[in-house]
Amino acid sequence: MVTIKDVAARAGVSLGTASRVLSGGAHTSADSRSRVLAAAAELNYIAHGPARSLRRAKTDVLGLLVSDIRNPFFSELAHAAEREARRLGYTVLLANSDEDAAQEAALLRAFASQRIDGFLLAPQGGDSSALRGLLGGGMPLVCVDRTVRGSEAPTIAPDNAGGVALVLEWLRGRGHREVAFVGGPATISTGAERRDAYLSRRAEHGISTDPALVDEGDFQADSGAAAMRRILGRGMRPTAVFGADGLMTLGAVRALRAELGDAARGVELVSFDDLDWFALTDPPVSAVRTDASTIGRLGIAALVDLINGRAAVSQRVPSAFIDRAGPARATAPPLSPPTRRGRGRTPASRPDAPR
Amino acid sequence: MVTIKDVAARAGVSLGTASRVLSGGAHTSADSRSRVLAAAAELNYIAHGPARSLRRAKTDVLGLLVSDIRNPFFSELAHAAEREARRLGYTVLLANSDEDAAQEAALLRAFASQRIDGFLLAPQGGDSSALRGLLGGGMPLVCVDRTVRGSEAPTIAPDNAGGVALVLEWLRGRGHREVAFVGGPATISTGAERRDAYLSRRAEHGISTDPALVDEGDFQADSGAAAMRRILGRGMRPTAVFGADGLMTLGAVRALRAELGDAARGVELVSFDDLDWFALTDPPVSAVRTDASTIGRLGIAALVDLINGRAAVSQRVPSAFIDRAGPARATAPPLSPPTRRGRGRTPASRPDAPR
Repeated sequence: MVTIKDVAARAGVSLGTASRVLSGGAHTSADSRSRVLAAAAELNYIAHGPARSLRRAKTDVLGLLVSDIRNPFFSELAHAAEREARRLGYTVLLANSDEDAAQEAALLRAFASQRIDGFLLAPQGGDSSALRGLLGGGMPLVCVDRTVRGSEAPTIAPDNAGGVALVLEWLRGRGHREVAFVGGPATISTGAERRDAYLSRRAEHGISTDPALVDEGDFQADSGAAAMRRILGRGMRPTAVFGADGLMTLGAVRALRAELGDAARGVELVSFDDLDWFALTDPPVSAVRTDASTIGRLGIAALVDLINGRAAVSQRVPSAFIDRAGPARATAPPLSPPTRRGRGRTPASRPDAPR
Repeated sequence: MVTIKDVAARAGVSLGTASRVLSGGAHTSADSRSRVLAAAAELNYIAHGPARSLRRAKTDVLGLLVSDIRNPFFSELAHAAEREARRLGYTVLLANSDEDAAQEAALLRAFASQRIDGFLLAPQGGDSSALRGLLGGGMPLVCVDRTVRGSEAPTIAPDNAGGVALVLEWLRGRGHREVAFVGGPATISTGAERRDAYLSRRAEHGISTDPALVDEGDFQADSGAAAMRRILGRGMRPTAVFGADGLMTLGAVRALRAELGDAARGVELVSFDDLDWFALTDPPVSAVRTDASTIGRLGIAALVDLINGRAAVSQRVPSAFIDRAGPARATAPPLSPPTRRGRGRTPASRPDAPR
């Protein structure tokens, strides 16, 4: 078994320094911290959990690392997590990895240097040495929204397959065949699960399996716009677009308006994740509502259970579908692509009554 | 002069405990921390700055306390601050006061217990004992977006009066007389400055000074909807609505649609702060773009200057106006209020060409 002495030797620091770093103590330099954490990760050092917990002074502060604080899904999740933490007597410090694995690693190291009792993580996906270092230090961890490969941390995540099934039913009900899909990265569990559920079942819902209709972004808005432009650039003229998160759907709407002009209003939109302005656009955006608040709240509850030595289990949170489209499409979608400009919207997709 | 001995005596703790708390050291209980910080605040204890800085181990971690992480203005500000911090070799821990002074105080105490080198604050407004405690501990502080009464901290804020002047020019150019104003809280500097600039100059721009057209929210969406409903409930039928931040404008749009139905599309909207979907609604929302990214970036630069013993000065960041309305209104607004439903939008406010 690897001991703290091995870690100190590998890091080239004294036993006291290694101990202070791994116990989250004060008076350690940034340099020795990063060396000790790297050594602990390389050696797969696991501190003795219960003894460690007893030694660490409680601070009643929790860490929360989200993937993209500009994504309303995560700001809503963070807000609900804070509220639940406050109810349980904790305050929350947030960090934002900005959908960037290197930044995530830097932030995990920063958290390791702080006096927090545990943390929630919406991970970038891959197993990382920074994450192993933090876990090696005995830090209680719960994952939210996304899973980490090779980790046994309890995870509170949306029911991605169930949500995509709701989208597929809706697309079939609206009579769509030419559907563009702007997916998320396959390296992130939500990206992979939503994509797999969509690609494997779209044919049975009467949706074209043309690979030119499928593209991918990084869950941020600009990437959704770029993916949409690539799909249009391949000559595709979809009657509906399915974005795998709210921000990529926003990007897709922008690209459709820029490339197709007013004809963009005839394209129906559906998003995995509901944003608060989706009801206000023309046409409005229908959406799977994954309950970010519930995920944040359950994540904090599980983390506080772990901190207090209780068991915590993984959970999938079910989704609802918000149908904002007008009356069902009376006609099949046009077989020929619309012209680049001046094509009116179809009456079915834009009734005059407010919704 | 108040010494650390006075603080320890007032808090009823040992000198060593008081010293550990005020130096941000480890192994202090939550109870003794809060007692020491409260005592330091009551006694207005100021640590000896330079000596304190030398004693505190650098962590290369900065704190950022924003008012509402669900407000895109602040998530954009936080994102830019993180990016600049990373460029300068720091990581950032965020906290969210949720427009709530009590939560701000709790978070300031949590930050005081952490090992950070300094922090950025978008304050709730009032001078607080928690803030004085943190400053008394010698923590470098820069304010962003909003000022703190009684604080001399460098502040990077938008040019609120200049931004409102752009809105007033636009309202006059569009021929609006009946304009509803959904303002922010007078206790927060941005709320007070935007309100004062609007109320004091609207008459000279031909805008009605009827007090029934003016209401107030707390910068969050639901409060904007409630304020809009109160204005409509007083029988007002404005031709334009000016929201003092993006989220309250969102709330106002929702309330207009719910109360007026399709006639809501004839009401022009203008917001202080630009949200990324304002171009996509019908009609689109025009906006003062206060550059949250620049404020976040300059805030971090000023904070790092303070940490390194350099001077930092307050700055006002100028605004731009994004005009998303159609051709200028050809006719004066209707003198009689529109009927509750079925009133068509005016052609001028909703041209078919995409923007």
